[in-house]
Amino acid sequence: MSENQSKVNPDLAMERAKCNFNITEVTHIIDGGENVTLQRKKFEDAALNDGASKDRIGEEHMSPKEKYENAIRKSCIYANIVKNDLANMTALESFGLNSPILRRTADAFFKEVSPFLLHLGMFVPTLMGQCTQEQQAYWLPRALDMQIIGTYAQTELGHGTFIRGLETTATYDPETEQFVMNSPTLTSYKWWAGGLAKTVNYCIVVAQLYTKGVCHGTHPFIVQIRDEETHMPLPGIKVGDIGPKLGFNTADNGFLGFENYRIPRENMMMKNAQVLKDGTYVKVARHGKATYGTMVFVRVILVNEAAFNLAKACTIAVRYSAIRRQCSPNPEGSELQVLDYTTQQHKLFICIATAHALQLNSIWLWKTFSDTLAAIKEGNVDTLPELHALSSCLKALSTADAASLIEQCRHACGGHGYMMSSGLPYLYAFVTATRTYEGDYTVLLLQTARFLVKAYEQVEAGKPLTPTVSYLSHAFTGKKLPWDSSPDGIIRSFQALAAGKLSSAVKSLRRRLESGLSHEQAWELSTIQLISAAEAHCRAVMSQTYKNEIVRLTENSSPNVKKVMQQLSTLYLYYWALERIGDLLLFTSISEDDIVVLRLRYEELLKEIRPNAVGLVDAFDLRDELLHSALGSYDGNVYERLMAEALKSPLNAEPVNQTFNTYLKPMMKGKL
Amino acid sequence: MSENQSKVNPDLAMERAKCNFNITEVTHIIDGGENVTLQRKKFEDAALNDGASKDRIGEEHMSPKEKYENAIRKSCIYANIVKNDLANMTALESFGLNSPILRRTADAFFKEVSPFLLHLGMFVPTLMGQCTQEQQAYWLPRALDMQIIGTYAQTELGHGTFIRGLETTATYDPETEQFVMNSPTLTSYKWWAGGLAKTVNYCIVVAQLYTKGVCHGTHPFIVQIRDEETHMPLPGIKVGDIGPKLGFNTADNGFLGFENYRIPRENMMMKNAQVLKDGTYVKVARHGKATYGTMVFVRVILVNEAAFNLAKACTIAVRYSAIRRQCSPNPEGSELQVLDYTTQQHKLFICIATAHALQLNSIWLWKTFSDTLAAIKEGNVDTLPELHALSSCLKALSTADAASLIEQCRHACGGHGYMMSSGLPYLYAFVTATRTYEGDYTVLLLQTARFLVKAYEQVEAGKPLTPTVSYLSHAFTGKKLPWDSSPDGIIRSFQALAAGKLSSAVKSLRRRLESGLSHEQAWELSTIQLISAAEAHCRAVMSQTYKNEIVRLTENSSPNVKKVMQQLSTLYLYYWALERIGDLLLFTSISEDDIVVLRLRYEELLKEIRPNAVGLVDAFDLRDELLHSALGSYDGNVYERLMAEALKSPLNAEPVNQTFNTYLKPMMKGKL
Repeated sequence: MSENQSKVNPDLAMERAKCNFNITEVTHIIDGGENVTLQRKKFEDAALNDGASKDRIGEEHMSPKEKYENAIRKSCIYANIVKNDLANMTALESFGLNSPILRRTADAFFKEVSPFLLHLGMFVPTLMGQCTQEQQAYWLPRALDMQIIGTYAQTELGHGTFIRGLETTATYDPETEQFVMNSPTLTSYKWWAGGLAKTVNYCIVVAQLYTKGVCHGTHPFIVQIRDEETHMPLPGIKVGDIGPKLGFNTADNGFLGFENYRIPRENMMMKNAQVLKDGTYVKVARHGKATYGTMVFVRVILVNEAAFNLAKACTIAVRYSAIRRQCSPNPEGSELQVLDYTTQQHKLFICIATAHALQLNSIWLWKTFSDTLAAIKEGNVDTLPELHALSSCLKALSTADAASLIEQCRHACGGHGYMMSSGLPYLYAFVTATRTYEGDYTVLLLQTARFLVKAYEQVEAGKPLTPTVSYLSHAFTGKKLPWDSSPDGIIRSFQALAAGKLSSAVKSLRRRLESGLSHEQAWELSTIQLISAAEAHCRAVMSQTYKNEIVRLTENSSPNVKKVMQQLSTLYLYYWALERIGDLLLFTSISEDDIVVLRLRYEELLKEIRPNAVGLVDAFDLRDELLHSALGSYDGNVYERLMAEALKSPLNAEPVNQTFNTYLKPMMKGKL
Repeated sequence: MSENQSKVNPDLAMERAKCNFNITEVTHIIDGGENVTLQRKKFEDAALNDGASKDRIGEEHMSPKEKYENAIRKSCIYANIVKNDLANMTALESFGLNSPILRRTADAFFKEVSPFLLHLGMFVPTLMGQCTQEQQAYWLPRALDMQIIGTYAQTELGHGTFIRGLETTATYDPETEQFVMNSPTLTSYKWWAGGLAKTVNYCIVVAQLYTKGVCHGTHPFIVQIRDEETHMPLPGIKVGDIGPKLGFNTADNGFLGFENYRIPRENMMMKNAQVLKDGTYVKVARHGKATYGTMVFVRVILVNEAAFNLAKACTIAVRYSAIRRQCSPNPEGSELQVLDYTTQQHKLFICIATAHALQLNSIWLWKTFSDTLAAIKEGNVDTLPELHALSSCLKALSTADAASLIEQCRHACGGHGYMMSSGLPYLYAFVTATRTYEGDYTVLLLQTARFLVKAYEQVEAGKPLTPTVSYLSHAFTGKKLPWDSSPDGIIRSFQALAAGKLSSAVKSLRRRLESGLSHEQAWELSTIQLISAAEAHCRAVMSQTYKNEIVRLTENSSPNVKKVMQQLSTLYLYYWALERIGDLLLFTSISEDDIVVLRLRYEELLKEIRPNAVGLVDAFDLRDELLHSALGSYDGNVYERLMAEALKSPLNAEPVNQTFNTYLKPMMKGKL
């Protein structure tokens, strides 16, 4: 760092001098403790210091096929790094195999994603969650050592959300003790699984299980699709690439079809159900909801990644905004740093606060999930519905918030944000995908809404509520909540708002039922309101968790760290209160004067955070390798880097492009 | 069409059978009259029927360099088509040289844009707007015949919005009667101009004019940058590609620097100012605001393109939603068309309505602009400030609305919307760029706000107001507007809301001035509110224009056309009223019960529009060639087309990718 510091852009150096809090302390809070920070930095040094993550030619200059091939090369390098270093990293286990530390470091290697993403992200967790002990003993060591590479294929060309509608069949043949896999239609082809097209040789396939002429619904099977020595697709397997996408072009998302393809009976994942040799179907006595495990695990990861990618976007946008200068308030003055504009602060500081909110919510969700897993082992499954409802809405809101705020960061960078060399388009392409996969935004909020309506009925019945909805127990008074602009007061108002919207939605639902509609029809017609209620509930939970965690985590912090972290969590509350004025007017006693005061305090808060803005994004501690951004690098040499990146364009390798002689000149001379 | 109709997806055929209005009538309304539709179809037939727009290998499989080269090939083909057919197309002139008909047909050739985009889009219009008659006589014929190709370079690496801050210099040398062009710093390099990197040989350059030691501010110059025969950059010219972008990768956006590069005195564009042979600077007596011409022209085009691209997105999403089936309300039923879900209708029908609103607003803005140009010729420049304020906010809101609604269409298509073969990512990449260039969203709304604050002061002074702000004259009563849920009532409430927000913003501004802040400081601190006021004003204008134009244009329509067009324009009003409940509660007398009724009526309207949804997108009359979408084609064979597109992926040309032997296998065997 020291030798580079002499070259740091003076505006950024000035910003760092202004920062009044201890940046390292904040880094520890965000990471989840000093020990995690140390582990992370150690692993980042091991993985990145030798420059193996860097490309000679940037992926943005390549065709999708070239991108894929480059990604395979780097995935193998990265897999070796992980294998070599994983043994030393015991602390990681607290956040699961697919640790954020590994994931964030991987981002230095891939501007998009690794083709191995679903191997550790879905294949291995599903082996752990759906296999018997014996099956795990057979499959897990080979998978963890990457002797085989797998993915997870559930979605089909014609079927996503509605799992019961899947068409792929696995029909048991007792004579050979095999399952016969088939894709009866075009729409039954598996579609989307990452790494499926060219990379993996194994695949977990979700299919309708038939035995003795009876369909027992969807079950997961382990299917070998390519020869381990030659990598050729096996007979009966049709596999290929689904083509270019908005993002993820380094991962070979694939399609997969079966034609009387046979797998051994033992390849059915038998933890929750089994087919005996004679074809008898046996449901293992186990709570049906135990299969939520992998699903919730993946959602926690997605909330965490939303936080991480938003942190990258605001690091880029805040640093650039400290360097970029535009207009001067008076004709003779020098141009202002754009970070000095109120509109720019309004766009960016909520991004920093949201990155904190999502990060702390993901850690909290992980802890809640771990507690639930422990409870399940004790046979207590009471908290599962709540956890499911919670992970659904947090995944939905986190990915949607992060995606739209990443775009806000890009807009805040003007034209340069549109360059791939800004790094910002990659972040949006990634996060906007996570808004859809593993549960679409709308579908997930409706799942949470279903839980909320049940909670509403429990309140009516005088029954007790689980923690995250306990605020509902005294919410349906019909009276407006007295407005209180303290942080706790605003959180209570968010709860009142969620309760009010829920109550309106239930009223609509019941009015429709009374008019003679079926429950399904009444529900369907009320979905706009139900989603709005679920979103309000989730905002209340996220706000409260963020605020509580900040109080808890800064208990022993130095005064200025405590102050700036509280400023941000208060900013988050003010921001969302101002975004929801209509709802506040309906469900609280807020007055026009209160709104004026709230807006003024919000604007004042922007000015208070301003001097610490660069320090706050520095505290995310994102190495330049992770940002892939000419605008966001630590040294702030924005214009030099933009030009350096431009000069790497293959179009600049020759003064005149070949198309001049073949097309342009004949056209201009009227001879084409 | 007839032979294809037998193959139309049955769900789509059923939708078309349900449509109760005359589709052709609606097409004429959208196009701006039957004659325009006929002209358009004639030109589309001429340009597209021979299949010249189609690629053997899709651009999405190429590297950016290959995309560029393919785009040059097709641009030359398209330029010839335009040259051959342009003579017959007199009707086009009513919408300017850069007619929407040419632009929309070009989209069949380019999934992104043509490298010639700025030749007809900026180079030629600027020649027309900034050159003297003599200069035009010299330059225009060569440019229109494409003997030379030009672009427009204003933005620099370090300077965008703030034109006074541009650094490129043009210093007059009376000895040689030349201007000497220089790029004194890295940040002074021209950056972004489309076609600049490799395509154009001429460029309009905006530079600081120095003569006799005095700087006279920025002026435009015509600069030859490449040899007409060899296409080599001329000595003193540094030109190249700026690298890959989120979109526009078929256009070679470039950088340009000068090192003592000399151009003849006559290459200064001299309509508004001249430098005489001896170096004397002469400001031609002319209204300074006349240079708004090209700027407003481009903004009208951008509003129109926002409409057109949003129309494409909703054509894709609505057709796909009629074919896609998901979940069944009862366990035994077949899966529903996703278009039957209220949430899906909520996402999509506002897109159809907004496409209409933007289209009709763009035509209206064009007419207003033409009237203004005519008035300027008569020496009347009174309406210029209003036109400027209007074009600013309409450009800002149109591009922002279209971009976010295109993403909404993509989300509504689930995972498949993320495929490039859906066509949707291209539309977003294009429109989100137009949100930034030619005036950033925030900057433009602040320009409108400045006009609104002046209007506020005129009301206080009892002075008359120009038409688009005339509603302000009786708005500042301090009383809440009585709620009236008729379309006209809602439009009045949007005006009340704009007036209320403007009033609040002015109060904040004045409070800050009274506290001792300078006008610039007070303005800066009030910008969040000022932008909100400008947005509300623009929404009121757009809503009123949309509603008025629908009434006017359907006066002689058949009853069902009239009905469905009114349903959509009412839907637009309800949608935005529900989005702005907070503001309505503050500035009108709307009650909780009114809101319940409004929501119910909105939901009923969705159900009324539902049977006509596919007919409405068919009425946009977008040929498959323009959509580039497996999801949106007229025949609705979605899954067949998705698979056909997938199979074109170069990764599918070989069963095993080369990286298996070089990387994957050694890694799996532990030998890498």
